[in-house]
Amino acid sequence: MAPVDVPDLPARAAIGGLRVSILGGTGPQGLGLGRRFAMAGHRVVLGSRSSERAIEAARALHLPTGSAQVTGADNAAAAQDADVVVVAVPYDGHRDLLLSLAEVLDGKIVVDCVNPLGFDPQGARPLEVPAGSAAEEAAEALPAARVVAAFHHVSAVLLADPALAEVETDILVAGDDRVATDVVIGLADSVPGMQGRYAGPLRLAAALEALTANLIAVNRRYHCHAGVRLSGVGAVRR
Amino acid sequence: MAPVDVPDLPARAAIGGLRVSILGGTGPQGLGLGRRFAMAGHRVVLGSRSSERAIEAARALHLPTGSAQVTGADNAAAAQDADVVVVAVPYDGHRDLLLSLAEVLDGKIVVDCVNPLGFDPQGARPLEVPAGSAAEEAAEALPAARVVAAFHHVSAVLLADPALAEVETDILVAGDDRVATDVVIGLADSVPGMQGRYAGPLRLAAALEALTANLIAVNRRYHCHAGVRLSGVGAVRR
Repeated sequence: MAPVDVPDLPARAAIGGLRVSILGGTGPQGLGLGRRFAMAGHRVVLGSRSSERAIEAARALHLPTGSAQVTGADNAAAAQDADVVVVAVPYDGHRDLLLSLAEVLDGKIVVDCVNPLGFDPQGARPLEVPAGSAAEEAAEALPAARVVAAFHHVSAVLLADPALAEVETDILVAGDDRVATDVVIGLADSVPGMQGRYAGPLRLAAALEALTANLIAVNRRYHCHAGVRLSGVGAVRR
Repeated sequence: MAPVDVPDLPARAAIGGLRVSILGGTGPQGLGLGRRFAMAGHRVVLGSRSSERAIEAARALHLPTGSAQVTGADNAAAAQDADVVVVAVPYDGHRDLLLSLAEVLDGKIVVDCVNPLGFDPQGARPLEVPAGSAAEEAAEALPAARVVAAFHHVSAVLLADPALAEVETDILVAGDDRVATDVVIGLADSVPGMQGRYAGPLRLAAALEALTANLIAVNRRYHCHAGVRLSGVGAVRR
């Protein structure tokens, strides 16, 4: 693997100049994120187990004029060709997929947005994860990758809504690698309405993942698609 | 114990007409909450192990004209004389205090805002709690109380700031008893700037408590006192 040209990445994140690949890019969360990243100017590859399905999903995306290109590929090819790899797969199979891609993800910025949740008649609840969180599980599976946890709380429905020019939410970003978290904060900032915020080291990813169950309860009670904003941090830039 | 006149409570919460007692009312969080509840018109009793210290803390509070009365008492007397009992004690000793007050708290609305956190050179981290969360621990210790989890994320510094007329934050409220969560949402709503939001059953309290560690990391990075707002839920009422 050629080393990733890391110092350049925060600047490219800010101007919509990243190559972003999304594992699980044909699911609602991955597809919605890919759409918004492309609208922000990042070149996006949707990854899937089946390259045919990924290519078809990329073709079917409705993107406004001026968006960057979105293509499809199998997960391994998608991961190869990226500055930032977003992991948006179901929690089942999350670890196995990452183990299978460990070599190609070596040195890369890997953004885990997986929420390990179970569902029963009372609603959603966090699952116990042996590593503490899905993001820490990713870091264990990918010891040479730069794992960041982010994008847990953004509604797939809002991401996909063509009537919404902005997705009003903060993106809470946890990770141990300052450049990697800065790149992911920049990636979030590049999407209109989103604001990336550092939210602690990777060992604090579990609360971000678990909070998604609370947001599902919020959505059910208030019939909405809730996101999270931090108050009191400073001016929202846009 | 006479039964609490529950149907009346949500209405009284909205108009600043509750009797609110605060266990651990001389600590920064308890004192700050007591101050804001009194400013909103609720009659507040600060509880402490030492009634003298509680009385002194109540006397020393700087309250604007028009605030309701704040008095001090030992924790047991404070708990006795309340519609809503807020638990704002350190996590150490939390369970023992509640067990010692189980009889007097019978049937009452108990609002647990305890964050079980540990600190090390990397910052704050959530502690493992056998019951799952401090709030579920409270529910175990007080099987006949109506336990609600809330007020985890509000900054004691902002609560105490005499220059701040409003404390801009949502209050995420978790609990299994609809009337009790409605009362606590109303209590939050009665404080200018605060907005109470239902955030799931009590089994989802752990994420609210753990998220406080993330907010401490936010505060350290951005030199601020961050709170949480939900986006997309509906208009903020004030």
